[in-house]
Amino acid sequence: MVKQAVILAAGLGSRLKKRTEFLPKGFLEVGGVPIVEQSVQKLLAAGVEEILIGTGHCAEYYEKLAQKYPCIRTVKNEAYAETGSMATLALCVPWVKESAFVLESDLIYEAAALWVLGNAPQESVMLASGATASGDEVYVQTAPSGRLVQCSKVKTQIFPSEEEPVTELVGISKLSAETLSDMASFWETGGALMPKMDYEYAMAAVSREAGKNVPDSRNGVFVCRVEHLAWREIDDENHLRMAEEKIYPLIAERDALRNVRREVLLNPGPATTTDSVKYAQVCPDICPREAEFGEVMKNICTRLSAFAGGSEYVETVLFGGSGTAADEVMLSSCIPDDGRLLVVDNGAYGARMAKIASVYKLNFDVFRSSGSEALDVKTLKNKILSGGYTHLAMVYHETTTGLLNPVPELGRFCREHGVTTVVDAVSAFAAIDIDMERDGIDFMASTSNKNIQGMAGVAFVFCRREALEKTKDYPMRSYYLNLWDQYAHFKKTGQTRFTPPVQTLYALRQAILEAETETVQARYARYCACWEILAEAVKRIGLQMLVPEELQSKLITAVLEPDWPAYDFNTFHDLAREAGFTVYPGKLSDANTFRVANIGDIRPAEMEAFCELMEYYFAGVRKAGNRT
Amino acid sequence: MVKQAVILAAGLGSRLKKRTEFLPKGFLEVGGVPIVEQSVQKLLAAGVEEILIGTGHCAEYYEKLAQKYPCIRTVKNEAYAETGSMATLALCVPWVKESAFVLESDLIYEAAALWVLGNAPQESVMLASGATASGDEVYVQTAPSGRLVQCSKVKTQIFPSEEEPVTELVGISKLSAETLSDMASFWETGGALMPKMDYEYAMAAVSREAGKNVPDSRNGVFVCRVEHLAWREIDDENHLRMAEEKIYPLIAERDALRNVRREVLLNPGPATTTDSVKYAQVCPDICPREAEFGEVMKNICTRLSAFAGGSEYVETVLFGGSGTAADEVMLSSCIPDDGRLLVVDNGAYGARMAKIASVYKLNFDVFRSSGSEALDVKTLKNKILSGGYTHLAMVYHETTTGLLNPVPELGRFCREHGVTTVVDAVSAFAAIDIDMERDGIDFMASTSNKNIQGMAGVAFVFCRREALEKTKDYPMRSYYLNLWDQYAHFKKTGQTRFTPPVQTLYALRQAILEAETETVQARYARYCACWEILAEAVKRIGLQMLVPEELQSKLITAVLEPDWPAYDFNTFHDLAREAGFTVYPGKLSDANTFRVANIGDIRPAEMEAFCELMEYYFAGVRKAGNRT
Repeated sequence: MVKQAVILAAGLGSRLKKRTEFLPKGFLEVGGVPIVEQSVQKLLAAGVEEILIGTGHCAEYYEKLAQKYPCIRTVKNEAYAETGSMATLALCVPWVKESAFVLESDLIYEAAALWVLGNAPQESVMLASGATASGDEVYVQTAPSGRLVQCSKVKTQIFPSEEEPVTELVGISKLSAETLSDMASFWETGGALMPKMDYEYAMAAVSREAGKNVPDSRNGVFVCRVEHLAWREIDDENHLRMAEEKIYPLIAERDALRNVRREVLLNPGPATTTDSVKYAQVCPDICPREAEFGEVMKNICTRLSAFAGGSEYVETVLFGGSGTAADEVMLSSCIPDDGRLLVVDNGAYGARMAKIASVYKLNFDVFRSSGSEALDVKTLKNKILSGGYTHLAMVYHETTTGLLNPVPELGRFCREHGVTTVVDAVSAFAAIDIDMERDGIDFMASTSNKNIQGMAGVAFVFCRREALEKTKDYPMRSYYLNLWDQYAHFKKTGQTRFTPPVQTLYALRQAILEAETETVQARYARYCACWEILAEAVKRIGLQMLVPEELQSKLITAVLEPDWPAYDFNTFHDLAREAGFTVYPGKLSDANTFRVANIGDIRPAEMEAFCELMEYYFAGVRKAGNRT
Repeated sequence: MVKQAVILAAGLGSRLKKRTEFLPKGFLEVGGVPIVEQSVQKLLAAGVEEILIGTGHCAEYYEKLAQKYPCIRTVKNEAYAETGSMATLALCVPWVKESAFVLESDLIYEAAALWVLGNAPQESVMLASGATASGDEVYVQTAPSGRLVQCSKVKTQIFPSEEEPVTELVGISKLSAETLSDMASFWETGGALMPKMDYEYAMAAVSREAGKNVPDSRNGVFVCRVEHLAWREIDDENHLRMAEEKIYPLIAERDALRNVRREVLLNPGPATTTDSVKYAQVCPDICPREAEFGEVMKNICTRLSAFAGGSEYVETVLFGGSGTAADEVMLSSCIPDDGRLLVVDNGAYGARMAKIASVYKLNFDVFRSSGSEALDVKTLKNKILSGGYTHLAMVYHETTTGLLNPVPELGRFCREHGVTTVVDAVSAFAAIDIDMERDGIDFMASTSNKNIQGMAGVAFVFCRREALEKTKDYPMRSYYLNLWDQYAHFKKTGQTRFTPPVQTLYALRQAILEAETETVQARYARYCACWEILAEAVKRIGLQMLVPEELQSKLITAVLEPDWPAYDFNTFHDLAREAGFTVYPGKLSDANTFRVANIGDIRPAEMEAFCELMEYYFAGVRKAGNRT
């Protein structure tokens, strides 16, 4: 898995004259988007966590880009006017940890380019194609072992025979930290003589050297040749025109061939996901007990903890299972035999927590409250104190109704009084701003398939470290779902106790990357924008929401079903489904509702399209109703 | 999800003259494989469960193909010499349940063709491309709505202007059962007048009619145009030559761009998977409470039950979790409070079952036996009878040692004496021949990521229906892992109680399809062939296997680590890993072993390559040892 990329973007682009006098080449637009931004998006979609951009000419453009994409780190080559791409690369090399995609800023290419490099068995691989006839070809000489020998702009130097099919440098490689460091050393010893050295010159030199030493090994840089790859480097006006007219449409078509049919899920999770999260599941087989996979899981835990207040306070423990499994982990693992638990039940998920407590025969009581009204916090606080409870369990956001409980207020109150809090935040996490330390939450459950926008199958329990340590000697009530053992085993070995859902974890890793790129604040703002559209439409239609607006999460909305005789949820559902929208029935015993969630990778325009359809349906229902 | 395909293969192929006088066109070879077989493989990889082939000329070739691929059903058009492709299609239509890919037998095409059709939002879609200049083009006229209007071999009829880019019929469509039935009706009313009607003629007529009635709807046949699709129909010698020289290499390159790096997992699961299983995870987002997904799960259950003795006796219950979760489901759900359990422990997984029994405070005893010797069946039987046990729990195949326990013998004994059996068959299922009814197994656990060759994340509990019914009123000891509730809820609603791992289930569906195609017998034979290679190499090297051969499963082999001073498991592991093989440490407290599993999608040639590497490593170790 390639986690870093280096984009070489220092050059002057002087062959494009006026066009790049005050603009870096990467900011040329093809198809309406700067080409380097297209690259950044493709790298992110391929799972790259950090993109180093070696800047120089008009570096400020890249500084601005870095503000938009937090994964970008710029490294300026101050001597950009007097040096070549190898000088820029050498400045980036110290930041590369394992391996990196190295690519030029002035390229457009089909996404498959990164896919084939990522899936090549060797550690260092240079991408090449067949003839492009672009007029600025760099030809590639390959040894019989598949190793790179040299690159040259002089065709006859490498392909003297007219009959032989040529191999051209694309300008995208996957290079190991070792290869990169060898290239940097090569540069350091020879750079003074060749300040304008191209990075491919160093790459070829390093590869020749590696082939000389251990010809059988996987060392060196291997050439991966894709005859018909769609790509173009943009060096002059002619290239730019060709890119716009021919290559870009071809690339768009090729990339679109991998698209997955768009279904907008308005059910309260699993939520709509991006195609890149879907494709993150397609990865080389790996034994989850390999150290490499342990690192993936550690990384997932650390980054998830950051969304819950930060890894200095929070430990994330992963389980294979659903959100309910995470609830059961907490309830079966976090309460000692002499503990006394109060469960707040104001919806199906609160009731479920009470049910789990009863299965484990915990010493517990239930505090019941209406699913459509605010919790009576004062009474609840009194009950907590007067009942001598050691633990409080509650749901942050009731998925059944969209009601948001005042968890921070109750959490802080509990902390003051030494009461441990156990919170189901399944559909709140990664949308609502949560800081477990600040908000007095000791244990918190969520899952991979809600606001974090991953695939179903991974449950997580967030733990305040201090509270977690206390559970060490609590009785084990379930083996699979035990919190302390799962935590301690992973801490000790870097492995989960039982086979984890490997591919779902890779998807989660990608989903986290995308959540970091968007930020939780911006994600919640997008969700809210969708909710506003929905709420307006519900009002226009003349329907009622179950929960008063001020108590709503703006993530999931329960709409009361009208008593119009022609209304039928299934008809509405099927109509929406045919148009690519999935709505969901209610789950309440005391009110007939249907639910519309606005979580997941959905856009306001899609919510508008859905609302239009909803209005169309209900207008028909109303008309039919008036007729009867 | 398109589950069926129809291949139109009745034609004479008379333009290929001698070549197809005694051969159907589909059996022309390009790249060394009959082109129709390439199609069958691509359809299977795309998740198609059943392929109807409309045969005629030289139908016997297809009969033979159907023996190789159990998913094929042939339908012969006896009047093939006097009728056209629509007559053949009409004979297949009654077998199509929901929707089907419909394609011609004489095509080669890149796999993306099926992907784009499967992901098109409309139900009926015809694939088209840009100009091929093949010399036998069928041109396609498309309405502004995107619907198909007509097909014609006369270019000027559809594209009178030289400037307009043309659209060509490829010969692959996705058609709903409704569209197909409309086409068949159209044929039935007009067929007498046009016996040689091409199916595309009927398709266009039906599409025009649909467009006329409700222009806004998704009815009709929509044209999906991919300008640069790689495909060729082979109608004459010229096509065949072009296909062989140009198009086939292009297709091979395009398909290879989707390949995933091959890693051969020789750890005892998760096992190596096919790329098609990996890609089955990439599917349109779906709410798992949709009826459509309920059908997917029901289908998975029925087909899994078939591998465990047949769905007349066996119910399969799915859980999100690992194999241990399935063990915990059985132990926590299948033993009443007054039950008395005996757990056979001759390896880590037997010990784990005992651990779970202790967590739930069951009334149980442990029967301990060596991990490298045969169970003393006689003593065990006596113990079962004398101890008054109601339940026996045991591991079918000890993943830690490769020891196979005599489950059928013990199962039948238990049945005779009214003792319920609870079997961990995690790494036995789908390789060892199991029939729960025949073998006296009441409950049995397995998982998606071992011999069934799917992805990790789904656990299954197989239940003899009669035994399952008895657990109805047993105490609920875990909520998430309760067997009866999970079963009854799914039976009643077609939904799992909690969000299931949706994408992992789609991968499992594909893995089941591939297991059915290979058959469990052939799979076990392949595994055994790999094991023979391994066992030979182990002997050649001079290493010892922990378990006597006659007690081994031939699925997983524990090899005793030599006391040669230079031997180091990690060095061996890393060397193998670099070459693409993953080996695994042992898990025994009383013997130092490493383990090599030969389950998963691995080939004997790969095992040979691994053994060569193993011999290379141990030869070095020996030499170094002698030197010290």
